[in-house]
Amino acid sequence: MSFFTLEGTSQNARAGTIKTAHGDIQTPIFMPVGTRGAIKTLETSHIESMKAQIILGNTYHLYLRPGHELIEKVGGGLHGFMDWSGPILTDSGGFQVFSLSDLNKVTEEGVKFKSHIDGSYHMFTPEKSMEIQKALGSDIVMVFDECPALPATKEALHKSMELTVRWAKRCKDYELKPHQNLFGIVQGGLHQDIRMECLERLEELDFPGLALGGLSVGEKNEEMVEFLNDFTPKMPAHKPRYLMGVGKPLDILNGIRAGIDMFDCVLPSRNARNGQVFTFDGPMNIKNERYKEDPKGIDPELNCPLTKRYSRAYLRHLFNVGEYTAGLLMTYHNLYFFIELTRRAREAILEGKFDVFYESFYKRYTANQIS
Amino acid sequence: MSFFTLEGTSQNARAGTIKTAHGDIQTPIFMPVGTRGAIKTLETSHIESMKAQIILGNTYHLYLRPGHELIEKVGGGLHGFMDWSGPILTDSGGFQVFSLSDLNKVTEEGVKFKSHIDGSYHMFTPEKSMEIQKALGSDIVMVFDECPALPATKEALHKSMELTVRWAKRCKDYELKPHQNLFGIVQGGLHQDIRMECLERLEELDFPGLALGGLSVGEKNEEMVEFLNDFTPKMPAHKPRYLMGVGKPLDILNGIRAGIDMFDCVLPSRNARNGQVFTFDGPMNIKNERYKEDPKGIDPELNCPLTKRYSRAYLRHLFNVGEYTAGLLMTYHNLYFFIELTRRAREAILEGKFDVFYESFYKRYTANQIS
Repeated sequence: MSFFTLEGTSQNARAGTIKTAHGDIQTPIFMPVGTRGAIKTLETSHIESMKAQIILGNTYHLYLRPGHELIEKVGGGLHGFMDWSGPILTDSGGFQVFSLSDLNKVTEEGVKFKSHIDGSYHMFTPEKSMEIQKALGSDIVMVFDECPALPATKEALHKSMELTVRWAKRCKDYELKPHQNLFGIVQGGLHQDIRMECLERLEELDFPGLALGGLSVGEKNEEMVEFLNDFTPKMPAHKPRYLMGVGKPLDILNGIRAGIDMFDCVLPSRNARNGQVFTFDGPMNIKNERYKEDPKGIDPELNCPLTKRYSRAYLRHLFNVGEYTAGLLMTYHNLYFFIELTRRAREAILEGKFDVFYESFYKRYTANQIS
Repeated sequence: MSFFTLEGTSQNARAGTIKTAHGDIQTPIFMPVGTRGAIKTLETSHIESMKAQIILGNTYHLYLRPGHELIEKVGGGLHGFMDWSGPILTDSGGFQVFSLSDLNKVTEEGVKFKSHIDGSYHMFTPEKSMEIQKALGSDIVMVFDECPALPATKEALHKSMELTVRWAKRCKDYELKPHQNLFGIVQGGLHQDIRMECLERLEELDFPGLALGGLSVGEKNEEMVEFLNDFTPKMPAHKPRYLMGVGKPLDILNGIRAGIDMFDCVLPSRNARNGQVFTFDGPMNIKNERYKEDPKGIDPELNCPLTKRYSRAYLRHLFNVGEYTAGLLMTYHNLYFFIELTRRAREAILEGKFDVFYESFYKRYTANQIS
């Protein structure tokens, strides 16, 4: 039984199944982010009822608080700690030590960084990242990669890519738990040649899955789409492809069109807490005066099991008076929307009609800027 | 079919059923407070799953935001607005205009007050309070009463009681919706004679239920218990008795022992957000270091459907890192505890063994100060 089975394609778009010890994941899939052992505002019953197939945990945050040893001791890992029985993917902590910490110092050995919580110093190496992710017990483990500061020269990006590959090898040499699957991360900015070199060198290590890192980090959206359309089809077809930290609904559909299988992003949950909810008619800002007396649900087409019973007027009220309940309901709604979006995309791919689905979604989503 | 049926007594403690258009309420009962159209951190599915039989809404808050007219227009009232089909009790707004507003001026006509939100001036009269509660469509409506500033002389309390009675008459004269039941409020501080005079004069107006206001507002706990033990049994037996804004678990049991049927308090939800959870072994502070690696559930005996799956260590972590999810889970737990406490008390009363239940609960609850 292989880790990834490709079940259908529609031009470059793919539908498949990833098998893990904690269950199957039908791709393409959006993965909600549970940074510190919970998806913000929600609890595990919500993750179950929204039919999330896999969630993310953050190595950096969980290492600092409550600590991976505690999670392993109390819960036997993150699954038990948060009582989530489905698949979990953990990032390597790399992105956070580069972006969240005031100060960090990169050497061949790893990254020394300052905690954003108490200013204490810590060192992440490829081995340390593996040790933490092993304790967390995630089903998909990410290699510890360097995320270079942008903009960067081509030379700097190439040098960074080489370090990422050397670190990937050290991660590969670390013994994880038998159920864990280690993914490589392809870096190289928008340079096809650096990315291709990175891919080839990672392929020598033969990871069961591959991610694209360093995208949606400041480049123009068209540049990212163009890059994905060129590069993604060249990635090995028999391995799942994960586009890290992307993105908005149209970014996700563009990724799927290019051949990406897995997505994660804090955007749906973060924006929910700021009042932005996603619908098939485009994003809407629930704070808008126009929803003041609107008795309709947020998105009748979505039929979200948790939020369909509430009117826009009620949600707007909750948001405006600052009730936590607003964040809960809008977060759930947005994640349900993103998961449903990938589910519908999958259906269309299996019917060989992804382009029709894409055009139809795009047209409706952008027609009425209803917010 | 009478509004209230007394089904059993155990000394002064009573078990009964209140019939409303939105369902029956089995007493004694604790009523969760949904100040602004939601129980803080929870949504309506939670209220349903915790088997709350009746919830509260706040007239003052809902009048200011989003406004009672909007609630009636969009939802046909508060039930529809928040999609809660069970019974609702609304307060009169009196307590808030006296306690929350910097400035208020009491006349025979009513109370002029300043909004705590934008400083705008408003006037609540008995008729205005009825108009708002009518629009909200609550099943149990409270008369608009004066809540005198304490400490107050006996003379001032008597004068205030007389105003409360005159206002009660004006509320009674206001035509509510057919399904609404107006409760009178007995005031008079700890003075049995003023309270009794108030009760007798309210009885002339024959409200279907009676509340005790102005308790747990600074007097000693023993004074309140002594007052309740003396006064409550003198209240008419065929009407439900509601002790407003009280209290802690032992206060509630003391109230039940004195003959009270209905309780509400923000304490379980407010304290949850500060990390205090209630258990049959007493209150515990989830922030305490001793729970850091504790794999047990908060209260194995309670068997709370939502929180029993999580360890104390996990909840402590969520609380310590500031996840909203902690507030949600602990609020649910505490409300479930308070509702379960009244449910068990009711069972004991129906078996004629309330005193045994009281002693046993008291002993265990106070034995280990586990927090």
